[in-house]
Amino acid sequence: MIIVNIEDENGLKAFRHTAAHILAQAVKRLYPEAKLAIGPAIDDGFYYDFDVEKPFTQEDLEKIEVEMKKIVKENLKLEHYTLPFDEALTLFKDEPYKIELINELVGGDVLDAPLTFFKQGEFTDLCAGPHINYTSKVKAFKLLSSTGAYWRGSEKNKMLCRIYGTAFPKAAQLEEHLTAMEEARKRDHNKLGRELELFTTSEHIGQGLPVLMPKGARILQILQRFVEDEEQARGYVLTKTPSFAKSDLYKISGHWQHYKDGMFVMGDEEKDKEVFALRPMTCPFQFQSYLNRARSYRDLPIRYNETATLFRNESSGEMHGLIRLRQFTLSEGHIVCTPEQVEKEFLDALDLARFMLQTLSLEEDTSFRFSKWDSNNREKYIGDPEMWEKTQDFMREILDKTGIKYYEADGEAAFYGPKLDIQIKNVFGKEDTLITIQIDFQLAERFGMVYVDSDGEKKFPIIIHRSSIGCYERTLALLIEKYAGAFPLWLAPEQVRILPIADRHNEFCESLVKTLKKNAIRADIDSRSEKVGFKIREAQLQKIPYMLVIGDNEVETGQISVRSRKEADLGAMSIDALCEKLRLEITDKII
Amino acid sequence: MIIVNIEDENGLKAFRHTAAHILAQAVKRLYPEAKLAIGPAIDDGFYYDFDVEKPFTQEDLEKIEVEMKKIVKENLKLEHYTLPFDEALTLFKDEPYKIELINELVGGDVLDAPLTFFKQGEFTDLCAGPHINYTSKVKAFKLLSSTGAYWRGSEKNKMLCRIYGTAFPKAAQLEEHLTAMEEARKRDHNKLGRELELFTTSEHIGQGLPVLMPKGARILQILQRFVEDEEQARGYVLTKTPSFAKSDLYKISGHWQHYKDGMFVMGDEEKDKEVFALRPMTCPFQFQSYLNRARSYRDLPIRYNETATLFRNESSGEMHGLIRLRQFTLSEGHIVCTPEQVEKEFLDALDLARFMLQTLSLEEDTSFRFSKWDSNNREKYIGDPEMWEKTQDFMREILDKTGIKYYEADGEAAFYGPKLDIQIKNVFGKEDTLITIQIDFQLAERFGMVYVDSDGEKKFPIIIHRSSIGCYERTLALLIEKYAGAFPLWLAPEQVRILPIADRHNEFCESLVKTLKKNAIRADIDSRSEKVGFKIREAQLQKIPYMLVIGDNEVETGQISVRSRKEADLGAMSIDALCEKLRLEITDKII
Repeated sequence: MIIVNIEDENGLKAFRHTAAHILAQAVKRLYPEAKLAIGPAIDDGFYYDFDVEKPFTQEDLEKIEVEMKKIVKENLKLEHYTLPFDEALTLFKDEPYKIELINELVGGDVLDAPLTFFKQGEFTDLCAGPHINYTSKVKAFKLLSSTGAYWRGSEKNKMLCRIYGTAFPKAAQLEEHLTAMEEARKRDHNKLGRELELFTTSEHIGQGLPVLMPKGARILQILQRFVEDEEQARGYVLTKTPSFAKSDLYKISGHWQHYKDGMFVMGDEEKDKEVFALRPMTCPFQFQSYLNRARSYRDLPIRYNETATLFRNESSGEMHGLIRLRQFTLSEGHIVCTPEQVEKEFLDALDLARFMLQTLSLEEDTSFRFSKWDSNNREKYIGDPEMWEKTQDFMREILDKTGIKYYEADGEAAFYGPKLDIQIKNVFGKEDTLITIQIDFQLAERFGMVYVDSDGEKKFPIIIHRSSIGCYERTLALLIEKYAGAFPLWLAPEQVRILPIADRHNEFCESLVKTLKKNAIRADIDSRSEKVGFKIREAQLQKIPYMLVIGDNEVETGQISVRSRKEADLGAMSIDALCEKLRLEITDKII
Repeated sequence: MIIVNIEDENGLKAFRHTAAHILAQAVKRLYPEAKLAIGPAIDDGFYYDFDVEKPFTQEDLEKIEVEMKKIVKENLKLEHYTLPFDEALTLFKDEPYKIELINELVGGDVLDAPLTFFKQGEFTDLCAGPHINYTSKVKAFKLLSSTGAYWRGSEKNKMLCRIYGTAFPKAAQLEEHLTAMEEARKRDHNKLGRELELFTTSEHIGQGLPVLMPKGARILQILQRFVEDEEQARGYVLTKTPSFAKSDLYKISGHWQHYKDGMFVMGDEEKDKEVFALRPMTCPFQFQSYLNRARSYRDLPIRYNETATLFRNESSGEMHGLIRLRQFTLSEGHIVCTPEQVEKEFLDALDLARFMLQTLSLEEDTSFRFSKWDSNNREKYIGDPEMWEKTQDFMREILDKTGIKYYEADGEAAFYGPKLDIQIKNVFGKEDTLITIQIDFQLAERFGMVYVDSDGEKKFPIIIHRSSIGCYERTLALLIEKYAGAFPLWLAPEQVRILPIADRHNEFCESLVKTLKKNAIRADIDSRSEKVGFKIREAQLQKIPYMLVIGDNEVETGQISVRSRKEADLGAMSIDALCEKLRLEITDKII
């Protein structure tokens, strides 16, 4: 077995890699006709791919686990040795995938390196290691699932059967991990978001195009207003620009040359007079507002923002829940400024993004990535190498001043400039980019955007491309998982549910709803003829922050019994006191 | 000259038609080589098309006017007579366009009708009339412009030269009309909206795709929040659905069969696995939210609304300013209800639309049109004739109960049902549909939308398709023209401008802005080193509702001098009093 790049040298990876070998050994003992493909350690565990006639069932996995436990008990020693090419081919004559790998290794650049193998008992695998020394150490492991996977990840190849598992040095660690995974699955936005009726999908509409249902749409409305208001308070001005444009616009920006595969194109350049494309970014559209008249240094900085709908032609396999979409909504803005203003504007943009993450309690799950160009793939970018290096050095200087911890990543820049990416991990530990801030020395010139400086000269401004809350749909997905659907009061689509005990209390409840609504509190009545206990359980399942149970006593005294989702019974209070308590919790955006 | 359909028999039309003949007579006297095309009376005036070597200039028009005045003075009598086919051809042997018309008239259905002519002095025109009897009556007239126009309106034909004019029985009426037109031109949203930097367009983006600049975008944001809040208060729930879908969805709704020409399609059904189209309406998308789970009569009515982006593939000639677009934003909603609920829901939807129109002071410019199907063009609609007649009768009954005055129009229904259209006239008198409310007995069945009724039976609900404020961009265009850019305070993008007299007052102005912003009032400072008189004039040109001129006195006493756009100097008041005055004006949406 081969690990082409062992980037992580730590013991856990070697440990899990050995678990993968034990898995393969067990499979070969039980299913000698199974052909071995590859089986690396991965984040949180390991897998091994097999070519078998029929996929492994849950029962098969249990049998394999039993066999793996035997191998652990046998306490086999792992031995490392090398073989010449022809002997390796003989050894693996019945393993076509290994033969393919051996031929490649020998035919490739590593001709001089010996072919290395690891052997434990009767089982040998082509493998660069490292491994731990005895199978007995892999006591705490679990096989998790079996799925289909193409050989080498390509649809053109045969579909193999992949078994996923995980392993830890201690049983308690395994237990903890399995519990955490179970908890994560409960929070999975793609499951919980549907159960809570935040969104749905339709095969008639298509993949990557979710329908936000009333509760989900309400949360996005609240977030959008919050973001637009905060941005306005910080000196941003709003635009509202079209969702698509003629190819002419994208030819100026460079999207047509560098991003066309990711765009939805309407029309055919050979046949049609006008060819349009849905926009993947807002920049070239928002620039038109700047270009509307002459600008002077006195007008700068101009901070444009827009709640922009964007479109990316993702392939089927890449789309997922509300995280990876073909259409999404971005809090997108562009700051047009002078060179003297860039540093302050960049820091302010970072401050705004962090303010958003802090307000939503998402900051603890984030890390900062400085995304640079790949100088070995220059054709992917516009502009010359000198400009790129200069811009990146300039950006690194600013980043160092911020005091944030960041890591650098080559080849992750936008085609027009380097980025600071705020990366976020979801409940399963999967990382995505949530927010980016970019410095762009190039597009202003391409679009002929100038300003007259104090010396009377026409100059090209610098543009900061930035988001503040990122993609709204992705943010919603993260919030669902973060709060397990129990949104803080200010974001909860239904903030208060009123539960009349009997029909005779309905009228009082109606007037209560009116009072709450006057105080801008979202409230509904559950007036069904069901027992109050039943209604409370349902409201709790729907994670409604507050429940007001209304009976004779409440109607007579006007004192309301308040149940909180978090703290259960809060006792009775006046309607005014209740409204004030809730208004405060909403205004302060208390988590 | 021919008027194919004289629908309006009133005298003014005959009067203006005679003015068109006088125009043609004058042109023939001055430019004998000019060939006559046609020249009807139109709303507000008349035109005549000529085939000439070079287009008429403003100077030419003045010369023609002088000649027309002579013809009026000559007091020629208009005589009506008929001619046989061959004599008519001889008479017009040098007028190729008239020959074409004569040949068509004789070759067509009106074979038996005589060819009729009107003669005044040396001038004769092929014409069905009616006319007034003497040229001397056309005293008050004016030639307005000369433009290009294709013969018979088709790009395939020759470009002719059209002269527009208007005429009134009395000079005072003409004067009044010209003044009104002058005023309308000043208010033209397509001119004023650009001057005020509310929107712009870009040839690189394309026609019908305006860029809303910060001031325009801010007004739409304010309107959107107002509409969404009002709808929420009236029991609507929000959705946020995708901008495009696979053709599968439109095949169910019938859009693919009945509306495809109006849609932007991505992909080719013969070649591509998936074909998408941008949505021209929200209905099939919003329905997916309903379809997400089983519904009972207890759940109904459900009132969905969405601030929806829609796309229509308009042809180049049809697009105009913010009125006719390829992409627009609609306050679109669908009420799903039982037959028993339709009447109330329809009336409530009408009440909401009228509330919006009243709040914006647009109602006085509207009329109601009951838009029915065209039973002679059944292939344009889905469903059987009986259903259509029943639905229309049902709708007429409801309309009669509302007490509104409406007129009926055949062939203006949606392909799935009849509509009540709220028509609005702009400053030029041009009519467009602003808001529609439709009753639909058909789409629920096509989409399999059902509810379980109180008798336990599954039934199809009825759907009301409705808008409340209509298309936001179109509404903005109408508001620009209605208010000549001087928006009421609650809609003004910049509500208050602060004008420091000298630099030493800037600090005080900054703190004033902060106080105003805390009170949710949009304020800016003009701190340029210009004279205050200059700054005031500029703020007035930009139609800023309030100006605060700040000098030593204001800084010392804290009493602020307030100038209103409307009432000029309002005297001094405390900051608190000012904030309260403005808050009240904003909250009450005072015009």
